[in-house]
Amino acid sequence: MTANEKLALLRGKMKEAGVQAYYIPSSDPHMSEYLPDHWRSRAWLSGFSGSAGVMVVTETESALWTDGRYFIQAARQLEGSEIVLQRMKEPGVPTVIEYLTDRLSAGDALGLDGMITPAAFVGELEKAFEGKEVAIRTVDLISPIWTGDRPPMPATQAFVHPLEYTGASAAEKLNQLRKKLGDQGADAILLTRLDSIVWLLNVRAADISYTPALLSFCLVTPDQAVLYTNESRLPQEVLEHLKDNGVAVAPYGRVLEDVEGLRQPLTMLCPLEDMSYSLYAAMTGNDALTVVEGAEPVQPIKACKNPTEVACLKKAHIKEGVAMVRMEMELERRMAAGETLNECDVHDILNSYREPLPLFLGESFSCISAYGANAAMMHYSPAPDNCAVLEPRGLLLLDTGSQFLDGTTDTTRTYQMGPLTDEERRYYTYVLKANIALARGVFMKGCSGANLDILARNQVWRYGIDYRCGTGHGVGHLGGVHEGPHSMRLTNTVPLEPGMIVTDEPGIYEEGLVGIRIENELLVVPACSTEYGEFYRFEPVTRCPIDTRPLVRELMTFEELEWLNAFHEKVYEDLKDHLNPQEQAWLRQKTLPIA
Amino acid sequence: MTANEKLALLRGKMKEAGVQAYYIPSSDPHMSEYLPDHWRSRAWLSGFSGSAGVMVVTETESALWTDGRYFIQAARQLEGSEIVLQRMKEPGVPTVIEYLTDRLSAGDALGLDGMITPAAFVGELEKAFEGKEVAIRTVDLISPIWTGDRPPMPATQAFVHPLEYTGASAAEKLNQLRKKLGDQGADAILLTRLDSIVWLLNVRAADISYTPALLSFCLVTPDQAVLYTNESRLPQEVLEHLKDNGVAVAPYGRVLEDVEGLRQPLTMLCPLEDMSYSLYAAMTGNDALTVVEGAEPVQPIKACKNPTEVACLKKAHIKEGVAMVRMEMELERRMAAGETLNECDVHDILNSYREPLPLFLGESFSCISAYGANAAMMHYSPAPDNCAVLEPRGLLLLDTGSQFLDGTTDTTRTYQMGPLTDEERRYYTYVLKANIALARGVFMKGCSGANLDILARNQVWRYGIDYRCGTGHGVGHLGGVHEGPHSMRLTNTVPLEPGMIVTDEPGIYEEGLVGIRIENELLVVPACSTEYGEFYRFEPVTRCPIDTRPLVRELMTFEELEWLNAFHEKVYEDLKDHLNPQEQAWLRQKTLPIA
Repeated sequence: MTANEKLALLRGKMKEAGVQAYYIPSSDPHMSEYLPDHWRSRAWLSGFSGSAGVMVVTETESALWTDGRYFIQAARQLEGSEIVLQRMKEPGVPTVIEYLTDRLSAGDALGLDGMITPAAFVGELEKAFEGKEVAIRTVDLISPIWTGDRPPMPATQAFVHPLEYTGASAAEKLNQLRKKLGDQGADAILLTRLDSIVWLLNVRAADISYTPALLSFCLVTPDQAVLYTNESRLPQEVLEHLKDNGVAVAPYGRVLEDVEGLRQPLTMLCPLEDMSYSLYAAMTGNDALTVVEGAEPVQPIKACKNPTEVACLKKAHIKEGVAMVRMEMELERRMAAGETLNECDVHDILNSYREPLPLFLGESFSCISAYGANAAMMHYSPAPDNCAVLEPRGLLLLDTGSQFLDGTTDTTRTYQMGPLTDEERRYYTYVLKANIALARGVFMKGCSGANLDILARNQVWRYGIDYRCGTGHGVGHLGGVHEGPHSMRLTNTVPLEPGMIVTDEPGIYEEGLVGIRIENELLVVPACSTEYGEFYRFEPVTRCPIDTRPLVRELMTFEELEWLNAFHEKVYEDLKDHLNPQEQAWLRQKTLPIA
Repeated sequence: MTANEKLALLRGKMKEAGVQAYYIPSSDPHMSEYLPDHWRSRAWLSGFSGSAGVMVVTETESALWTDGRYFIQAARQLEGSEIVLQRMKEPGVPTVIEYLTDRLSAGDALGLDGMITPAAFVGELEKAFEGKEVAIRTVDLISPIWTGDRPPMPATQAFVHPLEYTGASAAEKLNQLRKKLGDQGADAILLTRLDSIVWLLNVRAADISYTPALLSFCLVTPDQAVLYTNESRLPQEVLEHLKDNGVAVAPYGRVLEDVEGLRQPLTMLCPLEDMSYSLYAAMTGNDALTVVEGAEPVQPIKACKNPTEVACLKKAHIKEGVAMVRMEMELERRMAAGETLNECDVHDILNSYREPLPLFLGESFSCISAYGANAAMMHYSPAPDNCAVLEPRGLLLLDTGSQFLDGTTDTTRTYQMGPLTDEERRYYTYVLKANIALARGVFMKGCSGANLDILARNQVWRYGIDYRCGTGHGVGHLGGVHEGPHSMRLTNTVPLEPGMIVTDEPGIYEEGLVGIRIENELLVVPACSTEYGEFYRFEPVTRCPIDTRPLVRELMTFEELEWLNAFHEKVYEDLKDHLNPQEQAWLRQKTLPIA
């Protein structure tokens, strides 16, 4: 079917449903960062496969909104269809809401699937339609037309995340959550974020690529916890685990009617940004419930890793470091032997060393192995049939991570492949200086990424260079590789607390020329407590050597070299017992102190 | 009269007015940082002279709230009176509002002077009294009882701030303001901040110590500007200047009835934090007016100095530098000769060199000349009969500034008086490193103090030390020595813009031991514009040498020394033509580059 044929089908359903326009978001019922294929209806309908984009279909028109990253791709993929590309934030381009208010008049209705449309967006719509007598009708018109080739809902087998890796039982975590709900003036919550639910209940599955998510909701009240997920997905071990921790199970599809049917008087905490419109309406429309808006409470609890989680993730990083060392050795050896290797080969070599490692489950995100100018594309991903061959010159950027049962990792290194230009050497040095400047930061309780980000960024800003992204992000524990609520961004004001992990990944990206990034994960730890208050600092948990060959030594301060030498000493000490003598000798060379 | 006798008088007036409690703030009708004596009624009534404190008097009780800085002083000064000291934020101490809601019941009334009580506070009171049937009555019960010895309202002679120092006429500035009002969705404003009014109209007086304020309000509408101040204070020159710029004059005391009587339909911008309750109520109670809350619009315009203001303030700093150099030379000479000098002598010597300088009007704040451990008290002020004698050892901190007709200055230097301990030398070096780290900062458009403050602070945080104040503040142009809306604080999110001045004054204060602060004023200037966006940097405008004798050279990086040498070269170049050969030679020695 072409896009136009699909649109004709949709218009038929719109007519039946009595709606004059239909809105299609790019989201799932959990507002997930990475969308399972089952919910990629906008891509199916339009043919545009980018990650960001929403659509509106009226009786006579259709339009698709996307942002600057995707203008070229969207224009190409929409060719031949009736769909008009709306280039967001370009002059003269209406917003979705402006477009809808312009086209709908008194008596008209807008249809949308309330289970996947964010409540906040519908709130904006309602405001825009005020006094216009335009109705909003929640109706799923995609399921009836996207039938044969629609990917099923994810339904991977769930498993228990054992206590030895979690450090706290689901029952203990539920108590923590109930206490926090009380602090926020509530006594119940419907959790929709998959990362929160799997962490809270110590279960995992593999519903989303690279992320051990289990498609589910979780209702927590003072005396009950219900996991909404399909029971066929839960092996006996998981069922028993849930029962032992006081968690009941109900079918995934029943969550909406259960919320509508709650009769116990409860004060429900509602994190608006995580909530679909239908669930929000079910809560606010239920007289038994008092709804209070507030921040999602599992996120900040989960962000502060407990001692077991910290001990585990350190072990995971040692394993990742061993694989990275072996990969780098093989790469050096085969390049020196004159073999032809490409970006994907690097990825394959690395995975060949990861797979035998204990508790390795898979990668934590799509590996970025980017040679030369490819590395200037921040989210480049090589494909076997379309990737660069490594030359014996310039730089290779490798941003990669693993899911081990004992932890999630995220590491970036940039390697010298041969002779470098002076500019490459200077840029590499600036990036390492930026990385070290943040890693060396000492800060008082209460400080956030907004306060700290500049420690790294100032090192490249002074040369008129910026990296157009945060300096870093939180990382889950056998969870998402991007988890909050904190991050290392100029705009994030969530205070950093001991136990939080944040990546430190400044970079320089010169289009068509070069891309450099050096990324460690940092753990927030107490530094000291003085008459002035509590001081925190960072402890790097990554255990992978940083290439020192490209460094312009004169640009490095004594303190920076001291930090680098101490870091390399830790890398060597923690990895050496896991390496054979030849590997040990290689790593000793790579981690020798610089005078 | 004793405090108790005054309270008895007040209770008599409370009875006449039918109020069961009376609230006395520490503010004036302009929410000024420094309170003219006329409005220091809380101090008069209670005997407690600290800058922060509010009082409540009921029929049988009285209480005074102040913060930790003043617990000891307040307890001493309240001794012998019935007034109960409420130590703010101590456990078990009620807030003013808790105290009032506890003591007032249905049918009671609280009295307060609406012209000096902040509108925001009354808003909180109204919320707390909701459903309690407690009335709030605006009534001034202080004027009837504080008669004979009450200081008059300030009424110094006004003068024109000439165009050669302002760079823009009052008429031009009024146009700027009207444009900005439009941007904020309004067309009129009642200005209450004295710093805004005098800058806007290019007039000054001397109504507040160290600050060239003119007690006044200013009503700006699309077709009118009215300065509310007593005409007797305005010489012919000022009257003509105002007339030429389209500004009418009305009596200070008439502002309230004029606002109440406005009949022109206007949308008034109301910066709530600057507004007294009576003026706020006059606006919101006037049907002709639509009130929109928003930030005070003159503050951000004024904060970005125009080219004339920048050129002028640089001249002012050169003059200040000349006086500082001469003071330091005399101090060195007389100490070497074995003379006995104290902290006040240093201040007197400095002023003896300032007074002959062109356009010098006076100091911009109470000079802090603090020797040894006295300098650990951040706001120490020496008195002739109670100040320390300088010894030939340790450090002398001097924080001082001037009001010149061409600009306001604020400088701190810490001088070596003789042998230092290792700790003093290390601390001095940390402070200078912190100062330089911020001064060397390069940052993108949009960055604020919240983002930048840590550049300085991290240099002392890494030793478990903090200075319990911002790193810096804005400075007026022949105005207040503390002006916003920006500042260099971890919590200030106002973006820094070219033309803004911010002080850079990190410090270390170890109680009973030592105090060190080094302060330059920095001007925000464009650094470069690249594919990544607009970059800004700082240009120091202070022209006073920094003592290099206490430095621990090994702790300084190459870049820091490079900055220091370049700064000293500028100091020498800009001052040398204003100095005699002997002074020149002395300054050359003090500013020689450090290898």
